[in-house]
Amino acid sequence: MADAPLAPLQDLSDRAREADRADPLRSRRALFHLPDGVTYLDGNSLGCLTYAARERLRHAVDQEWGEGLISSWNAASWVDLPARVGARIARLVGAEEGALVACDSTSVNLFKVLSAALALRPGRRVIVSERSNFPTDLYMAEGLAALLGQGHELRLAESAEEIPALVDGDTAVLMLTQVNYRTGALHDMAALSALAHDHGALALWDLAHSAGALPVDLSRDGADFAVGCGYKYLNGGPGAPAFLYVAPRHGEAARQPLSGWFGHAAPFGFEPGYRPAPGIARFLTGTPSVLALSALDAALDAFEGVEMSRLREKSMALTAFFVEAVETLCEGRGLTLAGPREPALRGSQISFHHPAAYALCQALIAAGVVGDFRAPDILRFGFAPLYNSFADALHAADTMAALLASGRHEDECFQRRNTVT
Amino acid sequence: MADAPLAPLQDLSDRAREADRADPLRSRRALFHLPDGVTYLDGNSLGCLTYAARERLRHAVDQEWGEGLISSWNAASWVDLPARVGARIARLVGAEEGALVACDSTSVNLFKVLSAALALRPGRRVIVSERSNFPTDLYMAEGLAALLGQGHELRLAESAEEIPALVDGDTAVLMLTQVNYRTGALHDMAALSALAHDHGALALWDLAHSAGALPVDLSRDGADFAVGCGYKYLNGGPGAPAFLYVAPRHGEAARQPLSGWFGHAAPFGFEPGYRPAPGIARFLTGTPSVLALSALDAALDAFEGVEMSRLREKSMALTAFFVEAVETLCEGRGLTLAGPREPALRGSQISFHHPAAYALCQALIAAGVVGDFRAPDILRFGFAPLYNSFADALHAADTMAALLASGRHEDECFQRRNTVT
Repeated sequence: MADAPLAPLQDLSDRAREADRADPLRSRRALFHLPDGVTYLDGNSLGCLTYAARERLRHAVDQEWGEGLISSWNAASWVDLPARVGARIARLVGAEEGALVACDSTSVNLFKVLSAALALRPGRRVIVSERSNFPTDLYMAEGLAALLGQGHELRLAESAEEIPALVDGDTAVLMLTQVNYRTGALHDMAALSALAHDHGALALWDLAHSAGALPVDLSRDGADFAVGCGYKYLNGGPGAPAFLYVAPRHGEAARQPLSGWFGHAAPFGFEPGYRPAPGIARFLTGTPSVLALSALDAALDAFEGVEMSRLREKSMALTAFFVEAVETLCEGRGLTLAGPREPALRGSQISFHHPAAYALCQALIAAGVVGDFRAPDILRFGFAPLYNSFADALHAADTMAALLASGRHEDECFQRRNTVT
Repeated sequence: MADAPLAPLQDLSDRAREADRADPLRSRRALFHLPDGVTYLDGNSLGCLTYAARERLRHAVDQEWGEGLISSWNAASWVDLPARVGARIARLVGAEEGALVACDSTSVNLFKVLSAALALRPGRRVIVSERSNFPTDLYMAEGLAALLGQGHELRLAESAEEIPALVDGDTAVLMLTQVNYRTGALHDMAALSALAHDHGALALWDLAHSAGALPVDLSRDGADFAVGCGYKYLNGGPGAPAFLYVAPRHGEAARQPLSGWFGHAAPFGFEPGYRPAPGIARFLTGTPSVLALSALDAALDAFEGVEMSRLREKSMALTAFFVEAVETLCEGRGLTLAGPREPALRGSQISFHHPAAYALCQALIAAGVVGDFRAPDILRFGFAPLYNSFADALHAADTMAALLASGRHEDECFQRRNTVT
């Protein structure tokens, strides 16, 4: 296909086959519906459908809703879904028992935990984050600061290296996304949480690109609060419920302002005054989306029995192999690695700069290789270790090489900008 | 069944048959999956499944998610769902074009619009509501007031009659649920919005028990803000997305603090600073639940071509017939009507007080008649005019009569309290 020399391609191909053969997670791929003719490397935007989620949704719709109707709140334990799904995510991110619930969106959850964190540091007015953080996190912090009207400042580091210099005795919260959505760069959660604590601040982590992609240990690494996304590596479906974590040491002191009836100590007591439920349940708000939580719950089956350290080994090998394949097959075609070269320093994604990144991304999609574009010039590829293979990585690299060699991505049809997520 | 005299039962039965025959909405019932052997009068807690919602969810899961994956954000117009579904609800509640979106939960949406309303009345510190309002509305107001820390007071009327005396020049917002969840009593939206405006306050309406149950005209009746529920009379499924409304006259001035990326002027521009989208889109927050919105969208098909005035006529006739049937067949059994006797003064539900309301509710459910219990002594029956029939109403009344006559509801098994929603 590509006009790279045959020998390197043959070598890569042999190694991909051998790596897939030896992959202890290879049987997981069959749990997912992977569309024919598509090599999907965008599980960090929207994870693939599992057969379990599909079946569970049918059951939730036809039986629980259709037949059971209102009785399913108890009979099908709908009422426990936020805690039950939360407990399954807890294992993946190292949360203590009863410290994590699934609910609402990541943005809404961020508002809740950031409010709680600021309330625990009443004399402090600074939220430290990064300018390259995922924008909605910054927007939510901005919205909360404006609402509070107490002069909270959002202090943004221009680079990861700059963070330590920005955290000081005025800092209430250090709010970071563990894996950068653009470059895949991975923060050291333990070191940065300790940095926050050394200054009397709290550490709030967004796990959007880490939950389900690599081992996270919120408890060991000192996180005070965390949020994360259900529709990326957890495969919960488009717009799936998100999750939030509150360290048990803050459990009884932490309060959040979106104090709806599902967070009440007696949700069905219909008392006119709010009394927060004990523990993490007080971080719930309105009626949870039962259908969406059911899909997420079933999607998590794919992680049952998976050791996250194994998943991480595969992820690191897979991304390293992809970098090597791209750099070998696309040499001299203007691609440069964005983000860390050392696998241990990144999440489960690889990004490349390219001057025609947008058009190249569109041309790749047209050729059945789905990654995504991130402004201004980044081509991003997510590797979901449960379903992506070394053969996927090689096919993507080889297809990109063929496109770049042929110049097909320069066609008019790939130049127009659409809305991309 | 009941030992009421034959003549009245026969008369009621004849009239039910005739009313169902003449019902211009009777064909709508076939759009819903109604479980065998169940007379479902709890559509005001959770609406029934439509075949359209079932099919649409299958399509959204199998095709849009499973096959289309990330491309479906554009190709299947996922990105437009909040506005598209909102536009369909807008027709049912008299909202102007582009003034209503479907998103998040009712509680979260209430927080957004109440924040916006308070910000529009910066010098005022009072939120007037009712003690009998649905609790989560009061809890959310309490949470917001505590977060603001500016001494906002939640001033609660003990009865509807007391409301005018509580609204004054300190009132920022009059926040009411149009139909009382317990008694079904219906507020006069036009009069109470005018009352608020006369004092320079804003009117915020919760349409949880009115959207899809009766004609609402937010625009004509002067509402400034509104929220409502997707899983009751709109039949969107358990925990369906809710909706929110902002009167166009506040469109550009209104700001809300849950300022997530979906409310940004350029959601996929990934700018570090928040710029609110024009109009109602700025009231969106995080990534919307696509599966849940898809179900709600399809469920709204059942309202296509339905004139809300027709639906209201049926609702009033149906509830009046039910009251008559219960009062005829259960005479002397301790049931007393809760809420207005005049159909025009209530929503689409009927409640009765009974000293053994909880046990009676459980016994009714065991006998296949599903209503619900509301503390301390209320039996509540919702009538969804799209699928409930006069025969349903009579069967429920007759079953209740039989239970009360036999005393079966006094059995031990019906006494234990479960969680009820």
